Amino acid sequence: MPEAHAARRARAQERTSALGADAALITSLVNVRYLTGLASSNAALLLPVRGPAVLATDSRYEQTARREAPELELIVDRFIEPALTRLAGARGLRVMAFEEHVMTVEQHQELTAVDGAPSLVASGRIVEELRMVKDEAEIGLLARACAITSEAFSAALPGIGPGRTERGFAVLLERAMIDLGAEAPAFDTIVASGPNGAIPHHVPGDRPFAAGDLITIDCGARYGGYHADMTRTVALGEPAAWQRDIYELVAQAQRAGIEAATAGTDVSAVDAAARDLIAAAGHGGHFRHGLGHGVGLEVHEAPTIGYGRTGTLINRVPVTVEPGVYLPGRGGVRIEDTLVVRADAGAGSREMLTTTTRELLVL
Amino acid sequence: MPEAHAARRARAQERTSALGADAALITSLVNVRYLTGLASSNAALLLPVRGPAVLATDSRYEQTARREAPELELIVDRFIEPALTRLAGARGLRVMAFEEHVMTVEQHQELTAVDGAPSLVASGRIVEELRMVKDEAEIGLLARACAITSEAFSAALPGIGPGRTERGFAVLLERAMIDLGAEAPAFDTIVASGPNGAIPHHVPGDRPFAAGDLITIDCGARYGGYHADMTRTVALGEPAAWQRDIYELVAQAQRAGIEAATAGTDVSAVDAAARDLIAAAGHGGHFRHGLGHGVGLEVHEAPTIGYGRTGTLINRVPVTVEPGVYLPGRGGVRIEDTLVVRADAGAGSREMLTTTTRELLVL
Repeated sequence: MPEAHAARRARAQERTSALGADAALITSLVNVRYLTGLASSNAALLLPVRGPAVLATDSRYEQTARREAPELELIVDRFIEPALTRLAGARGLRVMAFEEHVMTVEQHQELTAVDGAPSLVASGRIVEELRMVKDEAEIGLLARACAITSEAFSAALPGIGPGRTERGFAVLLERAMIDLGAEAPAFDTIVASGPNGAIPHHVPGDRPFAAGDLITIDCGARYGGYHADMTRTVALGEPAAWQRDIYELVAQAQRAGIEAATAGTDVSAVDAAARDLIAAAGHGGHFRHGLGHGVGLEVHEAPTIGYGRTGTLINRVPVTVEPGVYLPGRGGVRIEDTLVVRADAGAGSREMLTTTTRELLVL
Repeated sequence: MPEAHAARRARAQERTSALGADAALITSLVNVRYLTGLASSNAALLLPVRGPAVLATDSRYEQTARREAPELELIVDRFIEPALTRLAGARGLRVMAFEEHVMTVEQHQELTAVDGAPSLVASGRIVEELRMVKDEAEIGLLARACAITSEAFSAALPGIGPGRTERGFAVLLERAMIDLGAEAPAFDTIVASGPNGAIPHHVPGDRPFAAGDLITIDCGARYGGYHADMTRTVALGEPAAWQRDIYELVAQAQRAGIEAATAGTDVSAVDAAARDLIAAAGHGGHFRHGLGHGVGLEVHEAPTIGYGRTGTLINRVPVTVEPGVYLPGRGGVRIEDTLVVRADAGAGSREMLTTTTRELLVL
């Protein structure tokens, strides 16, 4: 979709111009992909405010770059950022914005030392802000990633039983995602059973599932570069009263968070909608991470939905809503969905992309 | 292995002291894992030259950090680098080294603004240099990753046939790695068939294999955090003379590179041993990437074996040797192995970790 990429570059040029810079040097690989279509482990983009953009990569990606971004001037070099900085100077660009949240101190020193380099000014997260609002083609890829995730979860679910290990189930689930067309898992799958459920980002290990466990599964497929993110907590055997209680609390908080995730709502208000319910039940200290985050070409991207965060949700912003309650030494519950904020159908509308049931599954 | 981590920290403390600093702030996640055992997506380590180290992470990883590094003081905070910088100041540390190749310009500005912050000096790649030489436990994990890779390659090989797509075979191979005990693929598998073989880092697509193809497969398993890396090129149907010619040339260059990879040899000489043969055959312009690289907790790490690179191979350094010849529009060949330089058994000794045959397989 070269037109989509050209339109994205035009928006980034506007933002760069508003900074008073003549050009932006894009060094975030994800931002380069977003603006050009080139996915690689080494690439950068010089984006002058006026005139054509110049892509740089090394020889490994030369042919891929020519295929994915035939409309762009291409530089093939071992040292791409200095090469683009030299070019910027040679083309008379005076002020070049750089991504200070990506560029390392070392790179910055190297570029400052380039003969004839433009003066460097911090750009802020201008491309990340553009990336927050997705176009329909992006939402389509993300929806496919989410559909694969839900289908794979259903396909793998019969594999949960006494004796199966966390790691064994994670492998089963990741294989199901690949079988259903995922490029790869969007991130390392989390499977946290019994007391491990109290560890929000537990790495699945050799613990075998046992009757009486709550089992939290946080997983997602990647498709076309877009990352799904979904969490479900299931019970192995009839759950105890305390397990049902925290499950219902988290489910209620998640519904409240989803209901609050509408265009025009501040992210701190979305967070509060869920967090206040958990705090009112006396579990405020057991929910210490943010409520959610944007998803797209990265599994965690803008906006962050959390306490003390600023910003407002708007149309076509995909986010997760994922409250949890974690009781050290005992276990935990987290429920998470990926959804897209939709303003088109009036306030209060959103599109759920992950669709697995949110009822407590007792296996 | 808390003793191994303590020994690594002691070596890093020595290097920090040699810089004239009172402490090092380690912000590379891989370096934090190397020094503490904690694998996470958000952690940092304050390593004073004298006295105990302080690990910082956020609440998601709190329990994992306590389990993996019980001997360390732990800070749980939403903003870990500023928290450790504040602590360093409060403990009277005056000069703190930071990883300028990892820390962003933005982070550096934030830390400089912390009240009572120590003065910040660039540390260089001190931990990466320590990581280059592996201990036997690390080599054991890497060897297992390589064994899984070779086994998975053999298991998947019958899946190559006319009509199978690049992507389909990549999935088959990655599943075989998982089935054989890999945590995950070490990187996105490359399968480049026919003319795509001329693209060193081709992303596998929908092209079906066809008789007459050379097919380059670059793959590796991750095990215990360690990354294997192996490439083989196979022929589907009887290869043409030009295909046999470049295969034999690359195989000969790879043997020369492997022979040259001994303790005490400069990396530029190892590169030249393979590259000169390819250049002498008139294909110098068709081999434009480095000959190899270190492998370990990252799939690409120090040392880089390439033209114009400096440094000398020493005992217990694992590296890849991976020459290639790429003919635009026609196809290519790359052959790659992971090996460990061994000085113990006299000059010239090394241990091959990937063991799949290097003869041209005709399928």
